[in-house]
Amino acid sequence: MQTQQTTKTLNGLNTEQMGETIEAIKGNPQIGKFVFRAKNEWLNGGENRSTIKDFYGALKEDDSREEPFVFTNGEPPVLLGNNEGANPVEFLLHGLAGCVTTTFILHASARGVQIHELSTELDGDIDLNGLLGLDDSVTPGYREIRIKMHVKADCSDEELEDLIATAKRRSPVCNTVLRPVPVNIVRAEA
Amino acid sequence: MQTQQTTKTLNGLNTEQMGETIEAIKGNPQIGKFVFRAKNEWLNGGENRSTIKDFYGALKEDDSREEPFVFTNGEPPVLLGNNEGANPVEFLLHGLAGCVTTTFILHASARGVQIHELSTELDGDIDLNGLLGLDDSVTPGYREIRIKMHVKADCSDEELEDLIATAKRRSPVCNTVLRPVPVNIVRAEA
Repeated sequence: MQTQQTTKTLNGLNTEQMGETIEAIKGNPQIGKFVFRAKNEWLNGGENRSTIKDFYGALKEDDSREEPFVFTNGEPPVLLGNNEGANPVEFLLHGLAGCVTTTFILHASARGVQIHELSTELDGDIDLNGLLGLDDSVTPGYREIRIKMHVKADCSDEELEDLIATAKRRSPVCNTVLRPVPVNIVRAEA
Repeated sequence: MQTQQTTKTLNGLNTEQMGETIEAIKGNPQIGKFVFRAKNEWLNGGENRSTIKDFYGALKEDDSREEPFVFTNGEPPVLLGNNEGANPVEFLLHGLAGCVTTTFILHASARGVQIHELSTELDGDIDLNGLLGLDDSVTPGYREIRIKMHVKADCSDEELEDLIATAKRRSPVCNTVLRPVPVNIVRAEA
Protein backbone atom coordinates (compact mmCIF):
# COMPACT_ATOMS: atom_id res chain seq x y z
CA MET A 1 0.00 0.00 0.00
CA GLN A 2 1.38 3.34 -1.01
CA THR A 3 1.17 6.37 1.22
CA GLN A 4 -0.86 9.07 -0.46
CA GLN A 5 1.00 12.36 -0.48
CA THR A 6 -0.95 15.58 -0.85
CA THR A 7 0.32 19.15 -0.73
CA LYS A 8 -1.51 21.14 1.89
CA THR A 9 -2.44 24.55 0.55
CA LEU A 10 -4.66 27.35 1.79
CA ASN A 11 -5.36 30.50 -0.24
CA GLY A 12 -2.86 29.24 -2.80
CA LEU A 13 -0.03 29.06 -0.28
CA ASN A 14 1.76 25.81 0.53
CA THR A 15 1.13 25.76 4.27
CA GLU A 16 3.61 22.94 4.88
CA GLN A 17 6.44 24.92 3.28
CA MET A 18 5.23 28.00 5.19
CA GLY A 19 5.39 26.14 8.50
CA GLU A 20 8.84 24.73 7.71
CA THR A 21 10.11 28.20 6.74
CA ILE A 22 8.86 29.71 9.98
CA GLU A 23 10.46 26.91 12.05
CA ALA A 24 13.74 27.28 10.14
CA ILE A 25 13.86 31.05 10.79
CA LYS A 26 13.00 30.50 14.46
CA GLY A 27 15.97 28.08 14.63
CA ASN A 28 18.32 30.45 12.80
CA PRO A 29 17.12 34.07 12.45
CA GLN A 30 19.83 34.72 9.81
CA ILE A 31 17.72 32.71 7.33
CA GLY A 32 15.18 35.56 7.37
CA LYS A 33 17.63 38.21 6.18
CA PHE A 34 17.03 39.27 2.58
CA VAL A 35 18.60 41.90 0.31
CA PHE A 36 16.51 43.01 -2.69
CA ARG A 37 17.95 44.89 -5.67
CA ALA A 38 17.08 46.88 -8.79
CA LYS A 39 19.10 48.47 -11.58
CA ASN A 40 17.70 51.46 -13.43
CA GLU A 41 18.79 53.34 -16.54
CA TRP A 42 17.61 56.78 -17.62
CA LEU A 43 16.40 56.81 -21.23
CA ASN A 44 15.08 60.31 -21.96
CA GLY A 45 13.06 62.98 -20.15
CA GLY A 46 10.77 61.25 -17.63
CA GLU A 47 11.40 57.78 -19.08
CA ASN A 48 13.66 55.25 -17.38
CA ARG A 49 13.77 51.48 -17.09
CA SER A 50 14.51 49.02 -14.27
CA THR A 51 15.71 45.46 -14.45
CA ILE A 52 15.11 43.25 -11.42
CA LYS A 53 16.42 39.72 -11.14
CA ASP A 54 18.70 38.52 -8.36
CA PHE A 55 18.39 38.88 -4.61
CA TYR A 56 19.94 37.41 -1.49
CA GLY A 57 17.92 35.47 1.06
CA ALA A 58 17.74 32.24 3.08
CA LEU A 59 21.56 32.35 3.35
CA LYS A 60 22.27 32.38 -0.39
CA GLU A 61 21.96 34.19 -3.71
CA ASP A 62 18.67 33.27 -5.35
CA ASP A 63 18.91 31.64 -8.79
CA SER A 64 15.23 30.95 -9.48
CA ARG A 65 14.79 33.60 -12.17
CA GLU A 66 16.16 32.92 -15.63
CA GLU A 67 15.12 36.26 -17.10
CA PRO A 68 14.95 39.65 -15.39
CA PHE A 69 11.71 41.54 -14.84
CA VAL A 70 11.79 44.83 -16.78
CA PHE A 71 9.62 47.86 -15.93
CA THR A 72 9.42 51.29 -17.53
CA ASN A 73 8.66 54.48 -15.64
CA GLY A 74 7.08 57.28 -17.65
CA GLU A 75 5.03 60.41 -17.11
CA PRO A 76 1.72 61.63 -18.54
CA PRO A 77 1.69 64.69 -20.87
CA VAL A 78 0.61 67.03 -18.03
CA LEU A 79 3.89 66.01 -16.31
CA LEU A 80 5.99 66.52 -19.46
CA GLY A 81 5.93 62.88 -20.67
CA ASN A 82 4.18 60.65 -23.20
CA ASN A 83 2.75 57.95 -20.91
CA GLU A 84 5.77 55.72 -21.62
CA GLY A 85 4.76 53.80 -18.49
CA ALA A 86 3.06 54.37 -15.17
CA ASN A 87 4.93 56.96 -13.15
CA PRO A 88 7.07 56.26 -10.06
CA VAL A 89 4.49 57.38 -7.48
CA GLU A 90 1.94 55.07 -9.13
CA PHE A 91 4.40 52.16 -8.98
CA LEU A 92 4.72 52.87 -5.26
CA LEU A 93 0.94 52.41 -4.90
CA HIS A 94 1.17 49.13 -6.86
CA GLY A 95 3.90 47.84 -4.52
CA LEU A 96 1.97 48.98 -1.45
CA ALA A 97 -1.28 47.34 -2.62
CA GLY A 98 0.50 44.08 -3.37
CA CYS A 99 2.43 43.99 -0.14
CA VAL A 100 -0.56 44.65 2.12
CA THR A 101 -2.48 42.00 0.16
CA THR A 102 0.23 39.33 0.34
CA THR A 103 0.86 40.03 4.04
CA PHE A 104 -2.88 39.69 4.69
CA ILE A 105 -3.03 36.37 2.79
CA LEU A 106 0.08 35.07 4.59
CA HIS A 107 -1.20 35.79 8.10
CA ALA A 108 -4.73 34.61 7.26
CA SER A 109 -3.32 31.33 5.96
CA ALA A 110 -1.12 30.90 9.06
CA ARG A 111 -4.31 31.21 11.15
CA GLY A 112 -6.23 28.79 8.95
CA VAL A 113 -8.60 31.44 7.60
CA GLN A 114 -9.80 30.90 4.04
CA ILE A 115 -10.08 34.02 1.85
CA HIS A 116 -12.56 34.11 -1.03
CA GLU A 117 -12.00 37.62 -2.38
CA LEU A 118 -9.60 40.44 -1.64
CA SER A 119 -9.27 43.66 -3.59
CA THR A 120 -8.04 47.15 -2.80
CA GLU A 121 -8.37 50.68 -4.12
CA LEU A 122 -5.66 53.17 -3.26
CA ASP A 123 -5.24 56.87 -3.62
CA GLY A 124 -2.77 59.40 -2.31
CA ASP A 125 -2.04 63.12 -2.53
CA ILE A 126 1.06 64.62 -4.12
CA ASP A 127 1.56 68.38 -4.30
CA LEU A 128 3.97 69.45 -7.06
CA ASN A 129 4.87 72.56 -5.04
CA GLY A 130 7.08 70.23 -2.98
CA LEU A 131 8.74 68.47 -5.93
CA LEU A 132 9.44 71.79 -7.66
CA GLY A 133 10.66 73.48 -4.49
CA LEU A 134 8.15 76.33 -4.85
CA ASP A 135 6.91 76.16 -1.26
CA ASP A 136 9.09 74.74 1.52
CA SER A 137 6.06 74.16 3.75
CA VAL A 138 4.79 71.56 1.25
CA THR A 139 6.14 68.01 1.50
CA PRO A 140 7.35 66.57 -1.83
CA GLY A 141 6.08 63.05 -1.06
CA TYR A 142 2.66 61.56 -0.41
CA ARG A 143 0.86 63.51 2.28
CA GLU A 144 -1.31 60.49 3.06
CA ILE A 145 -2.29 57.24 1.33
CA ARG A 146 -5.76 55.75 1.65
CA ILE A 147 -6.56 52.07 1.05
CA LYS A 148 -10.10 50.77 0.69
CA MET A 149 -10.01 47.02 1.22
CA HIS A 150 -12.76 44.64 0.17
CA VAL A 151 -12.52 41.15 1.73
CA LYS A 152 -14.71 38.07 1.75
CA ALA A 153 -13.37 35.51 4.21
CA ASP A 154 -14.40 32.59 6.40
CA CYS A 155 -13.93 34.35 9.71
CA SER A 156 -15.62 36.71 12.13
CA ASP A 157 -15.73 40.46 11.63
CA GLU A 158 -13.44 40.84 14.61
CA GLU A 159 -10.83 38.50 13.14
CA LEU A 160 -11.06 40.33 9.82
CA GLU A 161 -10.36 43.66 11.51
CA ASP A 162 -7.41 42.09 13.30
CA LEU A 163 -6.04 40.67 10.04
CA ILE A 164 -6.28 44.12 8.39
CA ALA A 165 -4.40 45.68 11.32
CA THR A 166 -1.77 42.90 11.13
CA ALA A 167 -1.35 43.38 7.37
CA LYS A 168 -0.82 47.12 7.89
CA ARG A 169 1.71 46.62 10.68
CA ARG A 170 3.63 43.66 9.17
CA SER A 171 3.66 44.53 5.45
CA PRO A 172 7.24 45.46 4.49
CA VAL A 173 6.19 48.13 1.96
CA CYS A 174 3.49 49.58 4.23
CA ASN A 175 5.93 49.64 7.14
CA THR A 176 8.54 51.37 4.92
CA VAL A 177 5.97 54.07 4.09
CA LEU A 178 4.75 54.43 7.69
CA ARG A 179 8.23 54.77 9.21
CA PRO A 180 11.16 57.04 8.31
CA VAL A 181 13.60 54.83 6.37
CA PRO A 182 17.14 56.05 5.54
CA VAL A 183 18.02 56.32 1.83
CA ASN A 184 21.73 56.72 1.14
CA ILE A 185 22.71 57.98 -2.30
CA VAL A 186 26.36 57.80 -3.27
CA ARG A 187 28.03 58.58 -6.57
CA ALA A 188 29.47 55.60 -8.35
CA GLU A 189 32.94 55.97 -9.79
CA ALA A 190 32.81 56.31 -13.58
CA MET B 1 8.47 85.88 -43.76
CA GLN B 2 7.29 83.16 -41.44
CA THR B 3 8.48 82.95 -37.86
CA GLN B 4 10.33 79.70 -37.32
CA GLN B 5 8.95 77.83 -34.35
CA THR B 6 11.14 75.28 -32.58
CA THR B 7 10.40 73.33 -29.43
CA LYS B 8 13.06 73.94 -26.82
CA THR B 9 14.05 70.69 -25.12
CA LEU B 10 16.82 69.71 -22.75
CA ASN B 11 17.39 66.13 -21.60
CA GLY B 12 14.22 65.17 -23.45
CA LEU B 13 12.06 67.59 -21.47
CA ASN B 14 10.14 70.41 -23.15
CA THR B 15 11.64 73.31 -21.19
CA GLU B 16 9.05 75.80 -22.48
CA GLN B 17 6.18 73.66 -21.15
CA MET B 18 8.16 73.17 -17.94
CA GLY B 19 8.58 76.93 -17.47
CA GLU B 20 4.91 77.56 -18.22
CA THR B 21 3.86 74.85 -15.74
CA ILE B 22 6.02 76.35 -12.99
CA GLU B 23 4.65 79.85 -13.63
CA ALA B 24 1.07 78.52 -13.66
CA ILE B 25 1.58 76.77 -10.29
CA LYS B 26 3.20 79.89 -8.84
CA GLY B 27 0.10 81.85 -9.93
CA ASN B 28 -2.32 79.25 -8.55
CA PRO B 29 -0.80 76.63 -6.20
CA GLN B 30 -3.97 74.48 -6.54
CA ILE B 31 -2.77 73.51 -10.03
CA GLY B 32 0.02 71.51 -8.37
CA LYS B 33 -2.31 69.26 -6.38
CA PHE B 34 -2.46 65.71 -7.73
CA VAL B 35 -4.19 62.52 -6.58
CA PHE B 36 -2.76 59.25 -7.90
CA ARG B 37 -4.63 55.93 -7.78
CA ALA B 38 -4.31 52.17 -8.18
CA LYS B 39 -6.73 49.25 -8.04
CA ASN B 40 -5.47 45.81 -7.08
CA GLU B 41 -7.03 42.36 -7.09
CA TRP B 42 -5.74 39.30 -5.29
CA LEU B 43 -5.44 36.28 -7.60
CA ASN B 44 -3.91 33.44 -5.56
CA GLY B 45 -1.22 33.03 -2.91
CA GLY B 46 1.39 35.76 -3.40
CA GLU B 47 0.01 36.79 -6.80
CA ASN B 48 -2.06 39.93 -7.29
CA ARG B 49 -2.56 42.46 -10.07
CA SER B 50 -2.89 46.24 -10.21
CA THR B 51 -4.51 48.41 -12.84
CA ILE B 52 -3.47 52.05 -13.01
CA LYS B 53 -5.09 54.57 -15.32
CA ASP B 54 -6.77 57.74 -14.14
CA PHE B 55 -5.52 60.46 -11.79
CA TYR B 56 -6.46 63.98 -10.81
CA GLY B 57 -4.13 66.92 -11.37
CA ALA B 58 -3.87 70.43 -12.79
CA LEU B 59 -7.47 71.04 -11.63
CA LYS B 60 -9.04 68.16 -13.58
CA GLU B 61 -9.32 64.42 -14.13
CA ASP B 62 -6.65 63.29 -16.57
CA ASP B 63 -7.91 61.60 -19.75
CA SER B 64 -4.62 61.04 -21.57
CA ARG B 65 -4.52 57.25 -21.10
CA GLU B 66 -6.74 55.11 -23.28
CA GLU B 67 -5.69 51.81 -21.74
CA PRO B 68 -4.71 51.08 -18.14
CA PHE B 69 -1.22 49.99 -17.12
CA VAL B 70 -1.36 46.50 -15.60
CA PHE B 71 1.29 45.07 -13.24
CA THR B 72 1.51 41.70 -11.50
CA ASN B 73 3.07 41.16 -8.09
CA GLY B 74 4.45 37.70 -7.41
CA GLU B 75 6.92 35.99 -5.13
CA PRO B 76 9.93 33.73 -5.78
CA PRO B 77 9.77 30.04 -4.70
CA VAL B 78 11.76 30.73 -1.49
CA LEU B 79 8.89 33.09 -0.55
CA LEU B 80 6.17 30.56 -1.44
CA GLY B 81 5.51 31.79 -5.00
CA ASN B 82 6.32 30.95 -8.60
CA ASN B 83 7.92 34.22 -9.78
CA GLU B 84 4.59 35.35 -11.22
CA GLY B 85 6.06 38.86 -11.19
CA ALA B 86 8.57 40.94 -9.27
CA ASN B 87 7.58 41.18 -5.63
CA PRO B 88 6.17 44.29 -3.92
CA VAL B 89 9.40 45.33 -2.19
CA GLU B 90 11.19 45.12 -5.55
CA PHE B 91 8.50 47.30 -7.17
CA LEU B 92 9.16 49.85 -4.42
CA LEU B 93 12.84 49.94 -5.48
CA HIS B 94 11.76 50.42 -9.11
CA GLY B 95 9.52 53.37 -8.16
CA LEU B 96 12.26 54.86 -5.97
CA ALA B 97 14.91 54.53 -8.71
CA GLY B 98 12.62 56.13 -11.28
CA CYS B 99 11.53 58.97 -9.04
CA VAL B 100 15.03 59.99 -7.95
CA THR B 101 16.10 59.82 -11.63
CA THR B 102 13.20 61.90 -12.97
CA THR B 103 13.57 64.46 -10.16
CA PHE B 104 17.28 64.73 -10.95
CA ILE B 105 16.58 65.24 -14.68
CA LEU B 106 13.86 67.81 -13.93
CA HIS B 107 16.01 69.98 -11.68
CA ALA B 108 19.08 69.62 -13.94
CA SER B 109 17.00 70.74 -16.92
CA ALA B 110 15.58 73.69 -14.98
CA ARG B 111 19.19 74.77 -14.29
CA GLY B 112 20.22 74.28 -17.92
CA VAL B 113 22.51 71.33 -17.15
CA GLN B 114 22.74 68.70 -19.89
CA ILE B 115 22.87 65.07 -18.77
CA HIS B 116 24.58 62.44 -20.92
CA GLU B 117 24.13 59.32 -18.79
CA LEU B 118 22.33 58.48 -15.57
CA SER B 119 21.95 55.04 -14.06
CA THR B 120 21.37 53.71 -10.57
CA GLU B 121 21.79 50.49 -8.63
CA LEU B 122 19.67 50.00 -5.52
CA ASP B 123 19.62 47.51 -2.71
CA GLY B 124 17.86 47.31 0.60
CA ASP B 125 17.55 44.98 3.58
CA ILE B 126 14.37 43.19 4.61
CA ASP B 127 14.31 40.83 7.59
CA LEU B 128 11.45 38.30 7.44
CA ASN B 129 11.43 38.12 11.24
CA GLY B 130 9.51 41.42 11.11
CA LEU B 131 7.00 40.36 8.44
CA LEU B 132 6.31 37.08 10.24
CA GLY B 133 6.09 38.69 13.67
CA LEU B 134 8.76 36.37 15.12
CA ASP B 135 10.79 39.17 16.72
CA ASP B 136 9.18 42.47 17.69
CA SER B 137 12.57 44.20 17.79
CA VAL B 138 12.88 43.67 14.01
CA THR B 139 11.23 46.17 11.69
CA PRO B 140 9.10 44.57 8.94
CA GLY B 141 10.08 47.14 6.30
CA TYR B 142 13.34 48.15 4.69
CA ARG B 143 15.96 48.87 7.33
CA GLU B 144 17.87 51.05 4.87
CA ILE B 145 18.01 51.55 1.08
CA ARG B 146 21.28 52.28 -0.72
CA ILE B 147 21.45 53.94 -4.15
CA LYS B 148 24.63 54.02 -6.23
CA MET B 149 24.21 56.71 -8.86
CA HIS B 150 26.32 57.00 -11.98
CA VAL B 151 26.04 60.36 -13.78
CA LYS B 152 27.79 61.98 -16.73
CA ALA B 153 26.76 65.62 -17.02
CA ASP B 154 27.94 68.99 -18.33
CA CYS B 155 28.48 70.58 -14.93
CA SER B 156 30.98 70.86 -12.10
CA ASP B 157 31.43 68.18 -9.47
CA GLU B 158 29.98 70.58 -6.90
CA GLU B 159 26.83 71.16 -8.97
CA LEU B 160 26.48 67.40 -9.48
CA GLU B 161 26.60 66.80 -5.73
CA ASP B 162 24.00 69.51 -5.24
CA LEU B 163 21.72 67.96 -7.89
CA ILE B 164 21.99 64.56 -6.17
CA ALA B 165 21.05 66.15 -2.83
CA THR B 166 18.15 67.99 -4.49
CA ALA B 167 16.89 64.79 -6.16
CA LYS B 168 16.96 63.00 -2.79
CA ARG B 169 15.12 65.80 -0.99
CA ARG B 170 12.57 66.63 -3.73
CA SER B 171 11.75 63.18 -5.15
CA PRO B 172 8.18 62.30 -4.11
CA VAL B 173 8.91 58.56 -3.70
CA CYS B 174 12.23 59.15 -1.90
CA ASN B 175 10.57 61.69 0.38
CA THR B 176 7.75 59.21 1.10
CA VAL B 177 10.34 56.62 2.14
CA LEU B 178 12.42 59.09 4.19
CA ARG B 179 9.46 60.49 6.15
CA PRO B 180 6.71 58.76 8.12
CA VAL B 181 3.62 58.87 5.86
CA PRO B 182 0.17 57.89 7.19
CA VAL B 183 -1.54 54.93 5.51
CA ASN B 184 -5.23 54.58 6.32
CA ILE B 185 -6.84 51.23 5.58
CA VAL B 186 -10.62 51.03 5.77
CA ARG B 187 -12.92 48.14 4.93
CA ALA B 188 -15.09 48.71 1.90
CA GLU B 189 -18.74 47.75 2.25
CA ALA B 190 -19.49 44.55 0.32
